[in-house]
Amino acid sequence: MSMGKQTFHESIRKILFISQIFALFPISNVCHRNVAQLQYKWMSLPVAYATVIMILNVMEFGIVIYYTFRTGLSFHSLGTIALYLVCLLEHYYLWRLAKKWPKLMQQWRQVEEFFIKIPYRQFMTYNMQFWLWFWYLFIMLCGLTEHCLLVFNSFQKSDLERIQCNLNVSYWETLYGRERPHLRMVLPFRFWLLPLFEWLNLTLAYPRSFTDAFVILVSIGLAARFKQILLRIKHVKGRPMPSIFWREVREHYLVLKKLLRLLNNEMSALILISCANNMYFICCQLFNSFTNIGVDWVAELAFWFSLVYNIFRTILTLSLAALIDEYTKKIIACLRDVPSRSWCIETQRFSEQLAVDVTAFSAAGFFSLTRKLILAMASTVVTYELMVSSVINEAAIKQVTSYCKHYERFEEIGENVQQIS
Amino acid sequence: MSMGKQTFHESIRKILFISQIFALFPISNVCHRNVAQLQYKWMSLPVAYATVIMILNVMEFGIVIYYTFRTGLSFHSLGTIALYLVCLLEHYYLWRLAKKWPKLMQQWRQVEEFFIKIPYRQFMTYNMQFWLWFWYLFIMLCGLTEHCLLVFNSFQKSDLERIQCNLNVSYWETLYGRERPHLRMVLPFRFWLLPLFEWLNLTLAYPRSFTDAFVILVSIGLAARFKQILLRIKHVKGRPMPSIFWREVREHYLVLKKLLRLLNNEMSALILISCANNMYFICCQLFNSFTNIGVDWVAELAFWFSLVYNIFRTILTLSLAALIDEYTKKIIACLRDVPSRSWCIETQRFSEQLAVDVTAFSAAGFFSLTRKLILAMASTVVTYELMVSSVINEAAIKQVTSYCKHYERFEEIGENVQQIS
Amino acid sequence: MSMGKQTFHESIRKILFISQIFALFPISNVCHRNVAQLQYKWMSLPVAYATVIMILNVMEFGIVIYYTFRTGLSFHSLGTIALYLVCLLEHYYLWRLAKKWPKLMQQWRQVEEFFIKIPYRQFMTYNMQFWLWFWYLFIMLCGLTEHCLLVFNSFQKSDLERIQCNLNVSYWETLYGRERPHLRMVLPFRFWLLPLFEWLNLTLAYPRSFTDAFVILVSIGLAARFKQILLRIKHVKGRPMPSIFWREVREHYLVLKKLLRLLNNEMSALILISCANNMYFICCQLFNSFTNIGVDWVAELAFWFSLVYNIFRTILTLSLAALIDEYTKKIIACLRDVPSRSWCIETQRFSEQLAVDVTAFSAAGFFSLTRKLILAMASTVVTYELMVSSVINEAAIKQVTSYCKHYERFEEIGENVQQIS
Amino acid sequence: MSMGKQTFHESIRKILFISQIFALFPISNVCHRNVAQLQYKWMSLPVAYATVIMILNVMEFGIVIYYTFRTGLSFHSLGTIALYLVCLLEHYYLWRLAKKWPKLMQQWRQVEEFFIKIPYRQFMTYNMQFWLWFWYLFIMLCGLTEHCLLVFNSFQKSDLERIQCNLNVSYWETLYGRERPHLRMVLPFRFWLLPLFEWLNLTLAYPRSFTDAFVILVSIGLAARFKQILLRIKHVKGRPMPSIFWREVREHYLVLKKLLRLLNNEMSALILISCANNMYFICCQLFNSFTNIGVDWVAELAFWFSLVYNIFRTILTLSLAALIDEYTKKIIACLRDVPSRSWCIETQRFSEQLAVDVTAFSAAGFFSLTRKLILAMASTVVTYELMVSSVINEAAIKQVTSYCKHYERFEEIGENVQQIS
Repeated sequence: MSMGKQTFHESIRKILFISQIFALFPISNVCHRNVAQLQYKWMSLPVAYATVIMILNVMEFGIVIYYTFRTGLSFHSLGTIALYLVCLLEHYYLWRLAKKWPKLMQQWRQVEEFFIKIPYRQFMTYNMQFWLWFWYLFIMLCGLTEHCLLVFNSFQKSDLERIQCNLNVSYWETLYGRERPHLRMVLPFRFWLLPLFEWLNLTLAYPRSFTDAFVILVSIGLAARFKQILLRIKHVKGRPMPSIFWREVREHYLVLKKLLRLLNNEMSALILISCANNMYFICCQLFNSFTNIGVDWVAELAFWFSLVYNIFRTILTLSLAALIDEYTKKIIACLRDVPSRSWCIETQRFSEQLAVDVTAFSAAGFFSLTRKLILAMASTVVTYELMVSSVINEAAIKQVTSYCKHYERFEEIGENVQQIS
Repeated sequence: MSMGKQTFHESIRKILFISQIFALFPISNVCHRNVAQLQYKWMSLPVAYATVIMILNVMEFGIVIYYTFRTGLSFHSLGTIALYLVCLLEHYYLWRLAKKWPKLMQQWRQVEEFFIKIPYRQFMTYNMQFWLWFWYLFIMLCGLTEHCLLVFNSFQKSDLERIQCNLNVSYWETLYGRERPHLRMVLPFRFWLLPLFEWLNLTLAYPRSFTDAFVILVSIGLAARFKQILLRIKHVKGRPMPSIFWREVREHYLVLKKLLRLLNNEMSALILISCANNMYFICCQLFNSFTNIGVDWVAELAFWFSLVYNIFRTILTLSLAALIDEYTKKIIACLRDVPSRSWCIETQRFSEQLAVDVTAFSAAGFFSLTRKLILAMASTVVTYELMVSSVINEAAIKQVTSYCKHYERFEEIGENVQQIS
Repeated sequence: MSMGKQTFHESIRKILFISQIFALFPISNVCHRNVAQLQYKWMSLPVAYATVIMILNVMEFGIVIYYTFRTGLSFHSLGTIALYLVCLLEHYYLWRLAKKWPKLMQQWRQVEEFFIKIPYRQFMTYNMQFWLWFWYLFIMLCGLTEHCLLVFNSFQKSDLERIQCNLNVSYWETLYGRERPHLRMVLPFRFWLLPLFEWLNLTLAYPRSFTDAFVILVSIGLAARFKQILLRIKHVKGRPMPSIFWREVREHYLVLKKLLRLLNNEMSALILISCANNMYFICCQLFNSFTNIGVDWVAELAFWFSLVYNIFRTILTLSLAALIDEYTKKIIACLRDVPSRSWCIETQRFSEQLAVDVTAFSAAGFFSLTRKLILAMASTVVTYELMVSSVINEAAIKQVTSYCKHYERFEEIGENVQQIS
Repeated sequence: MSMGKQTFHESIRKILFISQIFALFPISNVCHRNVAQLQYKWMSLPVAYATVIMILNVMEFGIVIYYTFRTGLSFHSLGTIALYLVCLLEHYYLWRLAKKWPKLMQQWRQVEEFFIKIPYRQFMTYNMQFWLWFWYLFIMLCGLTEHCLLVFNSFQKSDLERIQCNLNVSYWETLYGRERPHLRMVLPFRFWLLPLFEWLNLTLAYPRSFTDAFVILVSIGLAARFKQILLRIKHVKGRPMPSIFWREVREHYLVLKKLLRLLNNEMSALILISCANNMYFICCQLFNSFTNIGVDWVAELAFWFSLVYNIFRTILTLSLAALIDEYTKKIIACLRDVPSRSWCIETQRFSEQLAVDVTAFSAAGFFSLTRKLILAMASTVVTYELMVSSVINEAAIKQVTSYCKHYERFEEIGENVQQIS
């Protein structure tokens, strides 16, 4: 496929297909090149699969809640419930988005019709497909590494527990009891349960990284078009252009903005959940980093990798989502250079509009994803850490190093949660 | 009444009549369909009734202050005084508003004259009356539930106290002493006093929820008109309209904005009190939620219901009050799409005005009720909680489980206060 | 003097004369009606008097620093030094302003020339002179009451000290040692020293309240003119006015704004000091209010009066200084109503300018004195109090109730400082 | 050189030459008057020298990291690593800037071509060269004093250590062990190593002050030109100028702004590092000031000088960088005074652009260097200090007064770090 023909749907369709394996985006013909073939049907294989996974996850969540209330509410168990809830909400909102996806893609395709033709074609220098895949794979592989480290940590701890406590049960049974203490209450141990629960776990862990990746994908897809407009304007820099040129450019910009608004309507809940969850997770992990993390290098590696990965992913998501705003600001700067004789009512209107409106994704109208948000988030995290650290000093949290204690039961679920993430 | 004829006064008049029962809005003929019949007369039944209730409440407030200073000032008793003060202030400001209500309603009716006629009539798709009643009933019934739970809690605690302490007094007398310790000082127990004081209590508790409900009612009433303007503009989207059309729309928008400013002048004190009180109450209750709340499920249910209800009501009020701002932003977006040939000095002026001015209720010029306020409030609450929680760790607050201790006297009034809310 | 002839200089001249008694504004002929007669001469009686007072105050400040370093630096003694410093800085900056005052008043008089003539004359409904004197007297008399309460507290404590400790010195000598411990080191007690030092004390205490009062005076003086412009515009509301009318109004507005900028240049240091000092003082006093204040009602009354007065004065100053901004916003609202046919390049330019620029006093460009500043300051104070209160809980400050202890020496200066304020 | 001929390159070239001695700006012919002669060659003496210094510094940094991880991570040692990292990053980013410097200077020279000719020549009243040198020397000499004080403190402590502990080693060897504990691990003591390491130390310490100085130099260089535009506009105040005049002025302003954007692209990383480092350093030092600093006056003098110098330098940098924004605001004010008959599309466009865009250096889009930043930074520092101070109260940090203890090893590097700064 030549770069001049890259449409967003064609670039992203295989990524969505991979997501379908994890029970997201249950759309029929998701891999078809023609957007007209995309369809959301209630009676279809992807929907059936997603429904089964969803039901199983909701059931496990129910058992977790039941288990938590039986063993007692604590700061730790509340965290577990929050994590399950976030993952399930992400599943739900991605599903809701999937229902509208075929129509959205058709509208996107229509908008792109302008941008793959002359005169925009020559400004199509950005290899959208490459970058979509690059960031998608980068984020998901890091997420996979994080997951594997936590699983490996779990394996090791399970082993230690069995040896230290001289448990008379098989290795896998210990693991099961350790990782799914809430299920042990309900289901006796079966070997074939382990891969099933690991798969369920993966379908919960996947959307945590994927939501951020998805925001990045959509942002890049839109930003690529905004960049084409910018390049077209830059190309005629200093040359006097007729009023009709500026009208066209302004109208194309409006078309893109309408698409952005359309997408934002569907995605604002996802963006809000993603930002809130990232900030909460980073705050919690940083808070934990002040305390002793673990006794062995596996736990410590898993912890630090997870922390660095989450911070990096958050900054990356915000930076790439802020690209649209950046390009808009560059368009304003270009408009300042329009020579006096070609300054007309159209350029006036365009520049006024760009200066006044904020062209960026927003989280339900609460905040916009611009560059300044990174600083705001960072300073909030630092402030909260400083506040919380004054609490730590008093209630120094002790690290559990023995693996047989009775109250371990309350801790296990916490580690289980980390594994989800 | 057909939807096309719904005026704000006709939709709200019965709600105001219900409020009159709780000694608010002492206007004559409040239920009359004709706004010209509305009158504020100093010599009328509603005013007489409101005056009596007001005097009784102020007297009780005086006794509370006297009682507090005699038994000693504490963090808890300051909270009680603050609550009484807020409720009395809300009574006062609603009364002050009532005096201007007839004139306000006449102006509102004049403004609505435009919007119930052609061409706005066809855009009257929003069932204002239904939503006014829906939100009013929803908020007030939840408020009633909260009140009943607190009264029930009080009944139960009173019973417990009598049994634990082997008090030789009747059940109702214990209740009286428990709920009105400040009155016990002044008035001996009489059976007929109980319903009177409960009624007084209700007239104090009513405005706490009603102030928020009232802000919602007025916001919906105005937002419905802003929406009609938006729909009219949307209807001609893409079509070239003459300058005269835009002038008319702009002038109608200005008329609405003038009404908003007029209302805001009268309501800004109420909005400020409502926001401040909501935030203070949520902060305090969240702070209490860190400590042990109670020994029995009644106290715990009452506490959590009250907390969730207050948070929900606050968010609801801010969200619905922000509707006006939302519609204004959508009108701006529509103006961007006006085709070039029908772009004129009128559209230019309209778009500039919308972009620069903030069209929203404001609390005495300190802040505007827009969507961003919710985030600002939420982050302030979280910040304050984190700060305060560092204080908790040191001074762990113990829960009183015995009901006969002498210092209970100081606690009783606190519970009494919760019952008001 | 008829209200239509009130100029700012004529309204304020006697207030400045009173200030001269406290060694401020050393201008010759300050009471003369003609601004041309105002003169700053280095060789004049007011300057000579101000110089003597200044030298004495600086000398006392030097002795305080020397005393502080000899008896040891503490949080308390740093506060004393800060207070002396603030008062001396206010003296200095008011003096610097006085040098430019004659020229400023002449420019102000020129600007007022427009506003006391037709057509502005008929809009001169605001009795500037009355309000200048009202707020000036209100603030200064409250300040005097605060000062007297603190002096009375000092008298009483001095008496208690003499009785409790069986000191063999006269009443006045005890007072001297108590109030001026740093001077006792240097100067032996003389009866005639007491009134001298009390007078010096007053010349230091006066500018603390006067700086705020002065900001209010200038704000009212300017706001009265902005109001006249607003009234003139309101008067022609809805009527189509020629372009020449709007040009005139815009130019008069610009003239006022230039005067505002001129005054702001000279006053920004004073505004910054005043705001910083008010906020610091309120924070400190609120912090003290958490601890036990005093054993007797005199100390407690003095403390609470001082706290309430300072909070009220700060809010009042900010509110009245924000008037200019308020009137500007109302002018914008009026411009929205200009009918379409009289909308011209002048109104366009005027409305754009009002929307973009902030017309308000600013503290050296750091912040503008608008209504929003009150909220910003209040939330900063609450935040800092909450932070600091977590420190209190740990290091509970004990109240000194015995008056003979040796370490009292370190405390005395602190009370002395409070007396200055 | 007459003032009318001062170009930025000619004014700054000798300052850059001095920086070359400290291995910064490795450009060939940096002192040549002709900007065309400036060249960045990989094969040149400055690059070779800078490379050697860079390698040695990176090696020492490696050893520090190795040493830190062997002796254990602590809050203190993390600070050391952060400081080394900041200095090395500043080296790196200044080097990266140096590569683009010849091209930047040529563009700057082209822009200046306008401003050293008529009509701007007569407005060249600002002695740029003098102020460049004044602020550069002022900052660097204060930095040198700070460094010397810390070295002197180190000398004295080293002496004390030798005497207290009866060490059987020479004075210089003690110093070496004290100042370079990490190197002692790797390299035995040699006399000729001391000057080498002191020089390396200086090349690390230099960029800490120089980065701020550099921001000031560039800001002054640009602000001088903005001022010329302002003066030119002020000169024609009130006079009706043709449209062509305003077009010229606007285009010159745009040319300056493009240069600003170009410089900002290259410098934003440096600005971000400088601001972050300054704020972090001030926070840390203020935090330390609450604890006992030292037992002798040398340590105390060094500490307080360092603190005051850093606060002053930060405020100075921000104030001077904010000059560009200040001049822009003054140009807006001048545009308001343009008489009505000479108001044209050009002035309209110019005023709109100035009002909407922020013309100032920005740190990677996170924040702009305007006057308001100083207040924001100050309040952040105060807030963080208050938060941190609540931690101090609990974990009172004790001062080490004995110089032979074993755990001193962990402390030494901390003092070493202070010396770098």
